[in-house]
Amino acid sequence: MFSNRMPRYEILSPDAVAVLDRGWRRIVSEIGVQFGKAEALELFAKAGQRVDGDTVFLDPEFVLEQVRQVPAEFDMQARNPANNVHIGGDKMVFGAVYGSPFVREGEVRREATLEDFRKLAMLSQSFPELDSAGGVICEPNDAPLDSRHLDMIYALQTLTDKIYMGNVVSGPNAADTIKMTEILFGGRESIERTPAIISLINCNSPLRWDERMLDAMFEYCAAAQPVVLTPFLLMGAMSPVTVPAALAQQLAEALSGLARAQLSRPGCPVVFVAFLSNLDMQAGSPSFGTPESAIGLLCTGQLARHYGLPFRTGGGLNSSQTCDAQAAYESLMTLLPTFLAGTNFVMHAAGWLEGGLVSCYEKFIVDVELLRMLRVEFTPLEIDEASLAFGAHEEVGHGGHFLGAQHTMERFRDCFYRPLLSSTANYDRWLKLGGQDATARATGLVSKRLAEYEAPAIDEAIRSELAGYVARRRAALGD
Amino acid sequence: MFSNRMPRYEILSPDAVAVLDRGWRRIVSEIGVQFGKAEALELFAKAGQRVDGDTVFLDPEFVLEQVRQVPAEFDMQARNPANNVHIGGDKMVFGAVYGSPFVREGEVRREATLEDFRKLAMLSQSFPELDSAGGVICEPNDAPLDSRHLDMIYALQTLTDKIYMGNVVSGPNAADTIKMTEILFGGRESIERTPAIISLINCNSPLRWDERMLDAMFEYCAAAQPVVLTPFLLMGAMSPVTVPAALAQQLAEALSGLARAQLSRPGCPVVFVAFLSNLDMQAGSPSFGTPESAIGLLCTGQLARHYGLPFRTGGGLNSSQTCDAQAAYESLMTLLPTFLAGTNFVMHAAGWLEGGLVSCYEKFIVDVELLRMLRVEFTPLEIDEASLAFGAHEEVGHGGHFLGAQHTMERFRDCFYRPLLSSTANYDRWLKLGGQDATARATGLVSKRLAEYEAPAIDEAIRSELAGYVARRRAALGD
Repeated sequence: MFSNRMPRYEILSPDAVAVLDRGWRRIVSEIGVQFGKAEALELFAKAGQRVDGDTVFLDPEFVLEQVRQVPAEFDMQARNPANNVHIGGDKMVFGAVYGSPFVREGEVRREATLEDFRKLAMLSQSFPELDSAGGVICEPNDAPLDSRHLDMIYALQTLTDKIYMGNVVSGPNAADTIKMTEILFGGRESIERTPAIISLINCNSPLRWDERMLDAMFEYCAAAQPVVLTPFLLMGAMSPVTVPAALAQQLAEALSGLARAQLSRPGCPVVFVAFLSNLDMQAGSPSFGTPESAIGLLCTGQLARHYGLPFRTGGGLNSSQTCDAQAAYESLMTLLPTFLAGTNFVMHAAGWLEGGLVSCYEKFIVDVELLRMLRVEFTPLEIDEASLAFGAHEEVGHGGHFLGAQHTMERFRDCFYRPLLSSTANYDRWLKLGGQDATARATGLVSKRLAEYEAPAIDEAIRSELAGYVARRRAALGD
Repeated sequence: MFSNRMPRYEILSPDAVAVLDRGWRRIVSEIGVQFGKAEALELFAKAGQRVDGDTVFLDPEFVLEQVRQVPAEFDMQARNPANNVHIGGDKMVFGAVYGSPFVREGEVRREATLEDFRKLAMLSQSFPELDSAGGVICEPNDAPLDSRHLDMIYALQTLTDKIYMGNVVSGPNAADTIKMTEILFGGRESIERTPAIISLINCNSPLRWDERMLDAMFEYCAAAQPVVLTPFLLMGAMSPVTVPAALAQQLAEALSGLARAQLSRPGCPVVFVAFLSNLDMQAGSPSFGTPESAIGLLCTGQLARHYGLPFRTGGGLNSSQTCDAQAAYESLMTLLPTFLAGTNFVMHAAGWLEGGLVSCYEKFIVDVELLRMLRVEFTPLEIDEASLAFGAHEEVGHGGHFLGAQHTMERFRDCFYRPLLSSTANYDRWLKLGGQDATARATGLVSKRLAEYEAPAIDEAIRSELAGYVARRRAALGD
């Protein structure tokens, strides 16, 4: 897990924060937020909030009381304790792409399968830059619909020994995730003490939380498992076309979801989220890696700190159809600000392509390279007299070179970042090596990593119990 | 010209700045700096500095006196006054790639020609994101060696109406540049009042200024034209393998060059520079777009402000052999910090490929896209009540969409960044459009821009005088 001890890049003035603060207060109190679930409406009514139909009109002070119940930071356990994570503070936790129905492998784009899911989980396990394979690394379209969540959770639990994300398609799916996690971690008490599942709960923006998401959220909160409350704002579609309006709406949505979570389990960890981009207003299609999304991301970090909440944003987002220059620059246009903001939880950090419709193997490698570079870039320099290497200057003098200097010889192995994918070969050598561009080289790295993959050890009794659970539940679901 | 009104990202503590300050003082006073030119040594001796052979041992306080003579900001005139620039403060000035012997066009890599030079100058003219075509946009290998500087200056003067960089191959070449600039701007007095040429003077790092560069520098300083004093530090080769050591050396080199410039013309504008990257210690080849270079760049901005100097750093640097994902992410890994640092003068901002050996047409377009995006990203948000668009929320309500909202309709044309190169087309539409990746699309944009190019108007008498000067000097040089 990476600690970002570099300064935060903050761009909002105190006045701007105050305007945004007034913005969400007005939205929740005057327009209100819809909750598509009777239980949620009852909880809000009981807590003294005005409810009219599906709409809850929230008192901002009540919302802030709920905010104060949320832990600013929390731990999560992985089945390999070396992979435990801490969410909040200066820590950054990274997971792979989430939710793509398609995969891309070289020139082939096709529907994702369970085999793809497994391979992407194995890749996630093999790179220490990822703290989690995430959840739905791709949608396994060849697995039966009603029970594929079981296959996915089983794969995450057995092919990786890192934290994973819970299924949120329905309340029963969430319950299955929790049961299987109890098996893996030795019972409910263990995971209530230190959570082991983190789950993505999406708002139906603008300003509506739907029934199925609320059901899943209810299950996870009841088990004290963290929820990542996500307004999904493509400006122009789900929010107005200005960044400040989107930020105020994002606060209204995330904080109202947070209040819902605290009402069912006070103190349940939640993660505040920006997933903020915009439509391409000419094409009408979603646009990722835009300047507006980078600005929104930087503001979000500052707002999260203002309200004392751990937060999620960023990732390797882009709109590109292939793993090309556009995919790379749009991804870094999001990922570098993700580090500047000190983001605590980063989904989609490896493999995202084509606006999230595609999990791309080669892009996965490109993104891991970016994460590796950024970890070095966001590690503070040590600057003291010794670091000035005055002796090396005395040794080399004027117009000479430092290749053979003692100071260099002592450090050359690890003094600089060593790339995974990037090539510095001169042109002739590069041609001799095959003249492959970065994406073609990434294909080779995917094969190599998968060939070298080693499954993390697992207690056979537990593995068997998990497999038994999957089989029983699949039968019960009629798949 | 872009004004960067966003906050600077500063990563050095006051203690760290003090350590680096002690570092350069010790280098210039104890190891000294070599100057390969008798006139320079005499000037330093006359100013009371100890000279031993080629080596000048500088009193740091004397150096700082010279620093205080340098203007913190200065204007430059272009032949189209709309393209005048200001160097320093919150202004950022961008020029194209400089110095490449090769060009790349699609899959073809070949020696650069004068025709390439002209085409790249025309591209630079056509994009307002570039304030200058730079100087040696590529090396025109088919033009006679001794007189090609005349062809280049003439091309920059006639195909563009922006500022340009002076030739620095020798003193006489610099003198030709100045003469031709006097013709274009109506005489010496005009350009001494407001400079029109900015020139790259490279240090032979470590710690040596060579004769030919000093000759060129002498000519430009005598005419009060700004010089960009550039330590070229590939850590591991021209400097020790730690960033702090490179920063101290960079200060020693740049400030000693600055002192030389001030001794010949007090108050002559100079630009402080970091061109700092590292060797790939496994391959032995230069590496660009590295985390270390990004860190060095951020520190350089802070140091330049500490000493009150305008500064150059950054650009679209990368080591990649093609215009691929690596080229894109390495370039942005340099270019985004270039904006975070608030860099005043940015060379190599468009077209750089393969460690600077190649000027690439497609990469030129990719870089212009990055500059366009970053200009939006580094424009402060306006956050006030109106920007919250509360009325749009009242109009749309819960779970609706904002596409048809009045607030959207009034703003959809220019509310978001509009890409030049990036595509957000869905997969089917993208296939229908040819299924081209970003680099292939860039090829199309290069052709389109060159076809649409309009030469800026020029007084025919002046053009003819310039052509006459070129012809006379070429004859005199025997080419």
